[in-house]
Amino acid sequence: MSDPRIDHPLLAVDVVLVTAQHGRLRVLLVKRFQAPEEGLWALPGGLVRREEALDEAARRILREKASLSDVFLEQLYTFGRPDRDPRARVVSVAYMALVPPERLLPDAERLVADIEVPWSGESGGSVVLSSASGPLQTAFDHDDIVAMAVLRIRGKLAYTNIGFALLGPSFTLRELRLLHETILGESINKDSFRRRVLATKLIESTGTRQTAVGHRPALLYRFCGAPADDD
Amino acid sequence: MSDPRIDHPLLAVDVVLVTAQHGRLRVLLVKRFQAPEEGLWALPGGLVRREEALDEAARRILREKASLSDVFLEQLYTFGRPDRDPRARVVSVAYMALVPPERLLPDAERLVADIEVPWSGESGGSVVLSSASGPLQTAFDHDDIVAMAVLRIRGKLAYTNIGFALLGPSFTLRELRLLHETILGESINKDSFRRRVLATKLIESTGTRQTAVGHRPALLYRFCGAPADDD
Repeated sequence: MSDPRIDHPLLAVDVVLVTAQHGRLRVLLVKRFQAPEEGLWALPGGLVRREEALDEAARRILREKASLSDVFLEQLYTFGRPDRDPRARVVSVAYMALVPPERLLPDAERLVADIEVPWSGESGGSVVLSSASGPLQTAFDHDDIVAMAVLRIRGKLAYTNIGFALLGPSFTLRELRLLHETILGESINKDSFRRRVLATKLIESTGTRQTAVGHRPALLYRFCGAPADDD
Repeated sequence: MSDPRIDHPLLAVDVVLVTAQHGRLRVLLVKRFQAPEEGLWALPGGLVRREEALDEAARRILREKASLSDVFLEQLYTFGRPDRDPRARVVSVAYMALVPPERLLPDAERLVADIEVPWSGESGGSVVLSSASGPLQTAFDHDDIVAMAVLRIRGKLAYTNIGFALLGPSFTLRELRLLHETILGESINKDSFRRRVLATKLIESTGTRQTAVGHRPALLYRFCGAPADDD
């Protein structure tokens, strides 16, 4: 009898851990040290354990593979193309986690890759992941999973406070505008952005200003209300 | 050795097949004729086959259990609470399908249930499913899955042409407004709705009017552009 784990789909969780930095969306990748796809870069992931809810598996993977806890995390999409893993039928429940850039700690086995998005304006687009030394070869369908995360972030930007998770507790209007430009892939008029974002009531003034900057300190804002809806 | 299918999560697909009728969102339920949860009402679903993509499994289930093909279908969310099925660990990839009401054909084993939504305005809410004879007992966590579908439909209503799938190829502005009222659970001012919906450019006039109605025939509209994005 063949291995029953091969006859029945295996269930994994992969986490797209995204930040915004240097005007780019960026994602944490982990080097694969075993076949298949050895030497390629992959999203942090692993098989779901028997007694573990899916969200718990995603949080465990963040702890084990990125030393992170207490981050914005939501389920993204489930990827189940029969040929997506050469070993066996593996279905992956992908999660998206968002963090400010200072929380990502790259090392010899972990890389924070730039996400280059051809902004065709269409959904279902593809992305290219690259490091300072050029495009990266990614394992399995992980670039499709990253592309789905980018679409989700763009879709939620206008009507939720999802940016909070990328910016931290307080930020200037300029920082918020640069984040929107990064995510949407287009420049945004400063004055109309200011009017529009203040009208949404998603943010409010903290009443304090930046400190230790080389120019006139700008007012700091924060997101208000409930965290970004899970959908 | 225990059954390996019990040691490893099983993977199922369940389909929330939604329509809008009589001012309510409604969903197709199938009676369970075997344990567990025998006699309760469940979403049409089944285990994913080895060589089958997840979307393909959802389309097969729609064919086999609702005699439907060519419907709007998108992945909704994956439900994986360890105790959601008393038999074994079963993770369910839920799909949402939308159809006009005339395509749903109830019979002795299939029921089109009303979805009653307590419109608290919060996400993650619950729903009650009922038939003409009162509330229904639903199997597993299927009411949570239906609640997630309602949230998705509400979220997509404003910025996609998701209503197309519920209304069919052409409709009057009144029909579209009643659909929005049904989905949002609140009454909508006729004139501001008209202005707002025409401004979105999501619909356009067909140039023709209703026929065989007892009042002055209204202009018919259609959705324009690409189908509702999958996210």
